[in-house]
Amino acid sequence: MAASPLHPSDHLTGSAAALVGSGGGSEQAVASSFDLDSPVFRAHEGGKLAVHATQVLRDRADLSLLYTPGVADVSLALAENAGLARRFTSKRNTVAVVSDGTAVLGLGNIGPVAAMPVMEGKAVLFKHFADVDAVPVCMETGTVDEIVEAVARIAPTYGGINLEDISAPRCFEIEARLKERLDIPVFHDDQHGTAIVVLAALINACRVQERDITSLRVVVSGAGAAGVAVTRLLQRAGVADVVVCDSRGIISPERNDLTDHKPRIAATTNPRGISGPIGAALVGADLFVGVSGGTIAEEDLARMAPEAMIFALANPNPEVHPEVAHRYASIVATGRSDFPNQINNVLAFPGIFRGALDTGARQITEAMKLAAAEAIAEMVPDPTPKEIVPSVFTPGVAEAVADAVRKVALS
Amino acid sequence: MAASPLHPSDHLTGSAAALVGSGGGSEQAVASSFDLDSPVFRAHEGGKLAVHATQVLRDRADLSLLYTPGVADVSLALAENAGLARRFTSKRNTVAVVSDGTAVLGLGNIGPVAAMPVMEGKAVLFKHFADVDAVPVCMETGTVDEIVEAVARIAPTYGGINLEDISAPRCFEIEARLKERLDIPVFHDDQHGTAIVVLAALINACRVQERDITSLRVVVSGAGAAGVAVTRLLQRAGVADVVVCDSRGIISPERNDLTDHKPRIAATTNPRGISGPIGAALVGADLFVGVSGGTIAEEDLARMAPEAMIFALANPNPEVHPEVAHRYASIVATGRSDFPNQINNVLAFPGIFRGALDTGARQITEAMKLAAAEAIAEMVPDPTPKEIVPSVFTPGVAEAVADAVRKVALS
Repeated sequence: MAASPLHPSDHLTGSAAALVGSGGGSEQAVASSFDLDSPVFRAHEGGKLAVHATQVLRDRADLSLLYTPGVADVSLALAENAGLARRFTSKRNTVAVVSDGTAVLGLGNIGPVAAMPVMEGKAVLFKHFADVDAVPVCMETGTVDEIVEAVARIAPTYGGINLEDISAPRCFEIEARLKERLDIPVFHDDQHGTAIVVLAALINACRVQERDITSLRVVVSGAGAAGVAVTRLLQRAGVADVVVCDSRGIISPERNDLTDHKPRIAATTNPRGISGPIGAALVGADLFVGVSGGTIAEEDLARMAPEAMIFALANPNPEVHPEVAHRYASIVATGRSDFPNQINNVLAFPGIFRGALDTGARQITEAMKLAAAEAIAEMVPDPTPKEIVPSVFTPGVAEAVADAVRKVALS
Repeated sequence: MAASPLHPSDHLTGSAAALVGSGGGSEQAVASSFDLDSPVFRAHEGGKLAVHATQVLRDRADLSLLYTPGVADVSLALAENAGLARRFTSKRNTVAVVSDGTAVLGLGNIGPVAAMPVMEGKAVLFKHFADVDAVPVCMETGTVDEIVEAVARIAPTYGGINLEDISAPRCFEIEARLKERLDIPVFHDDQHGTAIVVLAALINACRVQERDITSLRVVVSGAGAAGVAVTRLLQRAGVADVVVCDSRGIISPERNDLTDHKPRIAATTNPRGISGPIGAALVGADLFVGVSGGTIAEEDLARMAPEAMIFALANPNPEVHPEVAHRYASIVATGRSDFPNQINNVLAFPGIFRGALDTGARQITEAMKLAAAEAIAEMVPDPTPKEIVPSVFTPGVAEAVADAVRKVALS
């Protein structure tokens, strides 16, 4: 049978789909303990991403513009001036969503192939909310050196690098070294996306309570990627008293079991020099931020200050159920969409990269993160205890974040 | 201003385009010796590729299927059985077009960023002709080890690797080592795409002349990526007498200046053990294949056998102008679209990968290449001296190639 000259692919797609669906593929022979016909698997059938051409290819004339011989002039112009890539190539708008699958969602080290659906999902969000063309790059894991080398080598292709679901403490050094080495933005979303939205929520919580953010006493439970970044950004925003706890309790210089990045946490937080279990930290605390994946005892929360705030962000199971949290806090946030005040990175990363790509920013700076948090907070004109952050689907959030980032970039 | 909740990106794209076009970007400040408003540059404005979601994201319910929490089950299923990636991720249909920019078109080593327009163009062709989702991966160049390591590390993302415009002799070892290491097809198109289409053309040229391919005397001018691959595939197809020439003349064991891969060429070709300049090789030759980028003297061509064939494939300037070639040959092919018999890789690579992806083939085998060449040849039902290969836009070529590859893969 003859297909259309311009769209033979239509037929081929059909063949391909038939093959995959017909039981001919090897994957069909292996049993799965999951219901592969359930809605979530059906939503993933064939993958969630496709590549499209932005230009029409109809005939030889088009071919000679989009490919040889015409393309040679564009390549030569770029060889002469690489900056033109921001105008004439997809580098302009493409972000690599890079993961080695070592810390995927709450699932742990499931490897690069199993990480693919998450990275594709991230790319869907990038496209939907900010028209960023994001592509998954799922890597075999390795040493920090090996990951840095691989990302740096492929970096010329992209306008930005979104690191994702890479285990701590490797993620800190990987991000730091890539930021130093590359001339495009490198952003570990598990760290900074979370931190930005937590700060946005806190800004509005303070508006609701008419409090000054700098006078708060904050306890961060979890010293991984999110905990470290939340701590640093809150400090940047002026919070002086942050105490970080890991599974063994308060991180303080007295501890002799601190490894990796934790001595630095001890040196830069906990100004009152307290020690002991997390319950000791929560005495009189104004804000609890849970990014630990663990649980927190009710009697510990009972020690918090009046008008306390609890951000219990572990997903899908918050450190404390919101109903319980409300017994001890006047403002409660979680990572879940089925309770008020969802702290969701989606509020931040699309607009962050949109703004950075538009301006050719070489880094996502601390000033950009602060401006992004403020922009997200401002998307709730009249914050209330039940609404301190906008919904993911609130119109204009990504645009407002992008505007804020662009302003900082161009200032 | 408020954008639609579902398409804030529409506005953002506008802003981005305005910024890039407004003289605000740094690239505007740098002069170019090219006319950036010419049709070919206009065709490249903003890049030639975009990423699209295949699923609709409308509301929280969609979000929970395409991303968290639903995606976790898909990731867990893949962690249990990685083969399911061929059904539930974009890996199924995605090919990385990998280049380090060291041998781009005839332009030489112009680097990874300048290679981007070519790789994007390749991706446009993959999509158009075979519905393959191809993404450029342009790498900083490095040693063979470094390129192999980088490609192997990101390979879990893709269903296949198309190597492109990597300089010889590095390309041979890079391809060989990646083929050994990876469980997905690795295909250096400059080698094998060219070889497949040359063989297809030769099959039909032999039909026109009612000759047996195995009895031909062939001279290949050029010992780079294309020359080596053409030689090997013609030998596979049964051609016994191939003589390869480089810029210093016939490659034979007598030469003491053979480096890299050339001793192997000397050992496996040139059965009559001739030596000297290319003119000596052309005495009585039936087919000249030029993949050298150089020129060939008219008096050398005059020595070829009666009813000779000349495939002068250097682009944009063939080794000999087709009009001159016709004085000494009854069948002439070039790489150009403005003369009959264009030898164009586009006839091969889209269908090759379509067939491989559909069947989950782990390699592009020699049998697949031979079958692909035969399939391309058969797309010209009644070959004539002026039509030994189909046009790039002949309906059904990629489909026929894919069918041929699928048959071999499943046999």
